[in-house]
Amino acid sequence: MSCVVAVVGATGVVGREMLDTLERREFPASRVVALASERSAGKRLSFAGAAIEVGKLGHDSFKGIDIALFSAGGSTSKEFAPSAAASGAVVIDNSSAWRMDPECPLVVPEVNAEAIAKRPKGIIANPNCSTIQMMVALSPLHRAARIKHIVVSTYQAASGKGQAALQELQSQLVSVGQGQAVTPKVFPKPMAGNVQSDWPAGSGGYSEEELKLVNETRKILGDETIRVSPTCVRVPVLTGHSESIHVQFHEPMSAARACELLRGAPGIVLTEGDYVPGGEPQPKDAAGTDPVYVGRVRDDLGVSGAINLWVVADNLRKGAALNAVQIAEHLIKR
Amino acid sequence: MSCVVAVVGATGVVGREMLDTLERREFPASRVVALASERSAGKRLSFAGAAIEVGKLGHDSFKGIDIALFSAGGSTSKEFAPSAAASGAVVIDNSSAWRMDPECPLVVPEVNAEAIAKRPKGIIANPNCSTIQMMVALSPLHRAARIKHIVVSTYQAASGKGQAALQELQSQLVSVGQGQAVTPKVFPKPMAGNVQSDWPAGSGGYSEEELKLVNETRKILGDETIRVSPTCVRVPVLTGHSESIHVQFHEPMSAARACELLRGAPGIVLTEGDYVPGGEPQPKDAAGTDPVYVGRVRDDLGVSGAINLWVVADNLRKGAALNAVQIAEHLIKR
Repeated sequence: MSCVVAVVGATGVVGREMLDTLERREFPASRVVALASERSAGKRLSFAGAAIEVGKLGHDSFKGIDIALFSAGGSTSKEFAPSAAASGAVVIDNSSAWRMDPECPLVVPEVNAEAIAKRPKGIIANPNCSTIQMMVALSPLHRAARIKHIVVSTYQAASGKGQAALQELQSQLVSVGQGQAVTPKVFPKPMAGNVQSDWPAGSGGYSEEELKLVNETRKILGDETIRVSPTCVRVPVLTGHSESIHVQFHEPMSAARACELLRGAPGIVLTEGDYVPGGEPQPKDAAGTDPVYVGRVRDDLGVSGAINLWVVADNLRKGAALNAVQIAEHLIKR
Repeated sequence: MSCVVAVVGATGVVGREMLDTLERREFPASRVVALASERSAGKRLSFAGAAIEVGKLGHDSFKGIDIALFSAGGSTSKEFAPSAAASGAVVIDNSSAWRMDPECPLVVPEVNAEAIAKRPKGIIANPNCSTIQMMVALSPLHRAARIKHIVVSTYQAASGKGQAALQELQSQLVSVGQGQAVTPKVFPKPMAGNVQSDWPAGSGGYSEEELKLVNETRKILGDETIRVSPTCVRVPVLTGHSESIHVQFHEPMSAARACELLRGAPGIVLTEGDYVPGGEPQPKDAAGTDPVYVGRVRDDLGVSGAINLWVVADNLRKGAALNAVQIAEHLIKR
């Protein structure tokens, strides 16, 4: 079967990771087309040892495209994903534009791959980075004991905010290390040597990022009764999101049982054993790799039958590009 | 009244902060004596415009001392605090050595100053940094509605690990900003561009630091039924601990009521109002200041009557030196 793939937003930090992921996983594309806004059109990107020129995204860009991977922001997705779908492409969209649309499946392949088949709009949504890694880690536990309540605090990396944020943090690291003051441009406040909640406002005192964790979790696990108490925080890490998660279940869970369920679960690398200082999964090791790393699985000290765990993944890979390409891999299997 | 104060561990990062705090708050000491281990004895420190020479700590160092502020680690406190008390000094100890001793009060002056009076051993314990700021923020809420369960995830600064850790992080920041690899010495793993749990092991998969949050909270609030689910994480921040806290109460609480209780509460600076990106309290602003900053007070999305909040403070000041000096101020009032 011939399969032509387009990457929309190909020059962005996730778009480049999508191209790398297609290449690394030897995705059987007969052709890969890179698209971006006028500003980036004409640039050349390397793919599978050759250079491909970035084309200007337009409503007529999708003739002959089988799968369109979008990562160009919500407004671009809202405008162009329907055109791509109308041209016959299946859209896999990494923005938040279609995630809560009841006619668009929201998919983490390890969790709900079956949802891919029902896509009346021809658009499949890729969840938010912080949701994806939490779902990979929690879905085996949910299947066994039904989640009642999640309290999650995140430690999110700069690359989730894009290329400019990544560069700003890197330059700030040098300045702060040398004891100099820094003036933020991309981040609302200095990022090196600091932590902050830098996402747009949602409602009720929550950021949009926090509400995504609530709503996307319920949609992916298909259970609107799950309670989620989220706090999202940006930390001065380049790539790799970490999450501190407390979970309560309808059926009692234990750390030992959770480890049994997570050991060998798809997409997970589990760190077991006694607490060792610095021995838990860390973003510096997760960056540039595919798995979701789970560690520090421990019985809760307060609530019987609850557990705490620590989940780390590369936010550009499993949190974005890899998850999208895995969805594409499911599409061509069918 | 003449009051002679000794600072034990005077050359360490908290010891220096103790001297600065005594000076800044114009503590009415007739004399300040600096003590340290043999390695640091003979060094000169500046205090109130003069130089004081650091004396070598010994069992006979405490003749004529009225108040001894200890910050030289647990084993030094275990060995020398009883000698100081036997010489007639009141010891205020910043280590973990005496905190859980039922004959030593564990004091955050804003919370349980009355406990200072009952000190059969002559030793008053200063709580752990991460506990102190949480107690200042939560005790007004506990008094109003009795805390049932706290889920806390911390974002703790390098200076909590001492001077060498602070210097290692600073040099790593420059290297990581320049894209170079780093080899950790003080931290178990690279700290710049990373997060890690670097405290010694406690039990049950928890670090010592996490168990402190559980046990000290119960002792300070005088309620052994309080459930605490802790996750302690070191982040690449120089000074200033942050905490993401979810709290459930026996009586229903709301964000609005919590703000009423926290507004103007002792030691607290409250940030109210709608969520604004980067508008919450941050360690870079808290560093070098005295208050406990509370922000992002919001009704929980999952559990009715529960709230979430964000608490930041300078771990060397309110988290250590300032709290100890405030205890000393209470002593001389009596």
